[in-house]
Amino acid sequence: MSKSFGLEILHVDKKTGARYGILHTPHGDVETPMFMPVGTNATLKMLSPEQVAACGSGVVLANTYHLHIRPGAEIVKKAGGLHKFMNYHGPILTDSGGFQVFSLASRRKITEDGATFRNEIDGGKEFFSPEVAIGIQEALGADIIMSFDECIPYPASREYVARSTERTYRWAKRGLEAKTRDDQALFGIVQGGAYPDLRRHAAEQLAALPFEGYSIGGTSIGEPKDVCFQMVRDAIAPLPQDKPRYLMGVGSIDYLLEGVMLGVDMFDCVLPTRLARHGALLTRHGRLNIQRKEYEEDFTPIEADCDCYTCQHYTKAYLRHLYKVGEGFGQTLNSIHNIRFLIRLMEEAREAIKNDVFAEFKEKIYADFNDPRGF
Amino acid sequence: MSKSFGLEILHVDKKTGARYGILHTPHGDVETPMFMPVGTNATLKMLSPEQVAACGSGVVLANTYHLHIRPGAEIVKKAGGLHKFMNYHGPILTDSGGFQVFSLASRRKITEDGATFRNEIDGGKEFFSPEVAIGIQEALGADIIMSFDECIPYPASREYVARSTERTYRWAKRGLEAKTRDDQALFGIVQGGAYPDLRRHAAEQLAALPFEGYSIGGTSIGEPKDVCFQMVRDAIAPLPQDKPRYLMGVGSIDYLLEGVMLGVDMFDCVLPTRLARHGALLTRHGRLNIQRKEYEEDFTPIEADCDCYTCQHYTKAYLRHLYKVGEGFGQTLNSIHNIRFLIRLMEEAREAIKNDVFAEFKEKIYADFNDPRGF
Repeated sequence: MSKSFGLEILHVDKKTGARYGILHTPHGDVETPMFMPVGTNATLKMLSPEQVAACGSGVVLANTYHLHIRPGAEIVKKAGGLHKFMNYHGPILTDSGGFQVFSLASRRKITEDGATFRNEIDGGKEFFSPEVAIGIQEALGADIIMSFDECIPYPASREYVARSTERTYRWAKRGLEAKTRDDQALFGIVQGGAYPDLRRHAAEQLAALPFEGYSIGGTSIGEPKDVCFQMVRDAIAPLPQDKPRYLMGVGSIDYLLEGVMLGVDMFDCVLPTRLARHGALLTRHGRLNIQRKEYEEDFTPIEADCDCYTCQHYTKAYLRHLYKVGEGFGQTLNSIHNIRFLIRLMEEAREAIKNDVFAEFKEKIYADFNDPRGF
Repeated sequence: MSKSFGLEILHVDKKTGARYGILHTPHGDVETPMFMPVGTNATLKMLSPEQVAACGSGVVLANTYHLHIRPGAEIVKKAGGLHKFMNYHGPILTDSGGFQVFSLASRRKITEDGATFRNEIDGGKEFFSPEVAIGIQEALGADIIMSFDECIPYPASREYVARSTERTYRWAKRGLEAKTRDDQALFGIVQGGAYPDLRRHAAEQLAALPFEGYSIGGTSIGEPKDVCFQMVRDAIAPLPQDKPRYLMGVGSIDYLLEGVMLGVDMFDCVLPTRLARHGALLTRHGRLNIQRKEYEEDFTPIEADCDCYTCQHYTKAYLRHLYKVGEGFGQTLNSIHNIRFLIRLMEEAREAIKNDVFAEFKEKIYADFNDPRGF
């Protein structure tokens, strides 16, 4: 891997495992822990790259599976790679496609070689393997790429989890061998289901391989919260201190803060932008549903102390109006707020870590939150 | 009317009636002739105000009828007016609602007093009159407002057109009397159908009233092109030289250029943004349909010499991809191009007028255009 990639841990909170650092990438340095907005189809839904950057985004995510289906990785490659294609010049991360093969595709069949499935767009037969996933991701050209994995359902039998996790390990080794570009950082994905010994074993095995970072997979797919946090604990324990840790697919306040406390550096989730498109706005006190009548004449911003573009320029009455008339710009404004909300939460978390008060910061956030529906 | 409003004619093309000027408004000075993008629901569909401004927009339009229905003018007023509500701080124009009463509402009944109709959102009974239209527009607070008119269908009998146009004249006088704000410029609307003498008579009558500008209405509703241009000619002849002239609802290249040649200063149309949302992009050679297979690997911008944000940063292959996957940001990028396209055309038209070569400029634009489907 190019010397331009690596995590520099600058401070570890004295009372928790929370770490503050800088992640160096070929497209710039970003601070950790961080929340990464998701641009599935090589676009952050409804936002321009400038609007995303104005939210303080560090890394943004794009989905290998989706881009493989449309427009196809070869077209992105011919366009000069993802950064140029989508006009985002900060760091980009692509996932392995494993989660989508698991969650979106039909007629899925997994063998030692890889996974065959039917794609939902044209019904065509597809084949993903460690080599194929790396090939696609090399064509896409993100800064950070993922090893192909099987995302194991929850719950699953110990026998199945053990067998699948061993296969994901063999796939991880094949991915490392298949990799040809030296300007992309390849992460291994820790599976192991909800079985602590299998998680730890999976992490130990991967830790011994020359990955540039580690993802924690198979989480946030239906397991209870405490089970998820235990998975994270088990996965992280054997991982090297000096490599970034990425908890995939979580984006609610509590998951982010608990993850940070356990030593996670990177998070991503479609939830904040999906919620935004449906008029659900994140605040420190709970979720606000912009379509409610009570906001019809509310000429205040979503959050009085929020520094996002939306809160600086628009009122809840305007956002409600846009929602009610079905105007897309409302989705843009709502998405900006929700993305900035999580990025700002991470900014404050980093400050708390630097000052060794992360636990107190987390308690304060929990105390301020008073939505009975939960995070 | 406040001294801050008025058209300063700086040059009239020596060989045509095309005029170059500056329109002073309470929210800034803008050059004419100009194309005004339409923000029906107090939002330029899919664009932020900054993105609209970056297209070089002068005045933008909002629709009285739509804003009356949702969210209601009183809410916009309480929000501090349209500029503040929608965060657009350049000049704004609202229409009279007459065209929408004519084209959108059902169970329409017109009397001397005004028009009753059913609104299409909640089925409620509505009443628009000259006084109501002014009241709504004063609450909305645009810089330029319109007198209430009946938009006469085409074709219509001479008798009906004569009767309706006389009523629109009486409505115009009532509107002038109803007006209370002195920081808004009120325009009269010239109707008269396709009957030259009725058009001229309508324009003469309105020209004698103290309007700040004149709109040419009842055009672009199905009449042949040459009939429309004749209507414009007949309407403009009696109008004062020193007041702005606004040809409502036209936005194709030929209508803009013919209108400018006849002495029109202002144009608006939803067409460029509506086309954009459907993937139809304006170019100097004709319309380009971005979903076509031929653009799949076309890594060039929509127009090589276009200075819009979209052409500066994105390829046709990317725009096609966004269209095919149904991503809203594609609509944003397409709209930016189409709006900038018409605004740039008007910028060039102004330069041509200043140099007394407007006729040659128009011929050059026509000669370069080679779309057999027409403008």
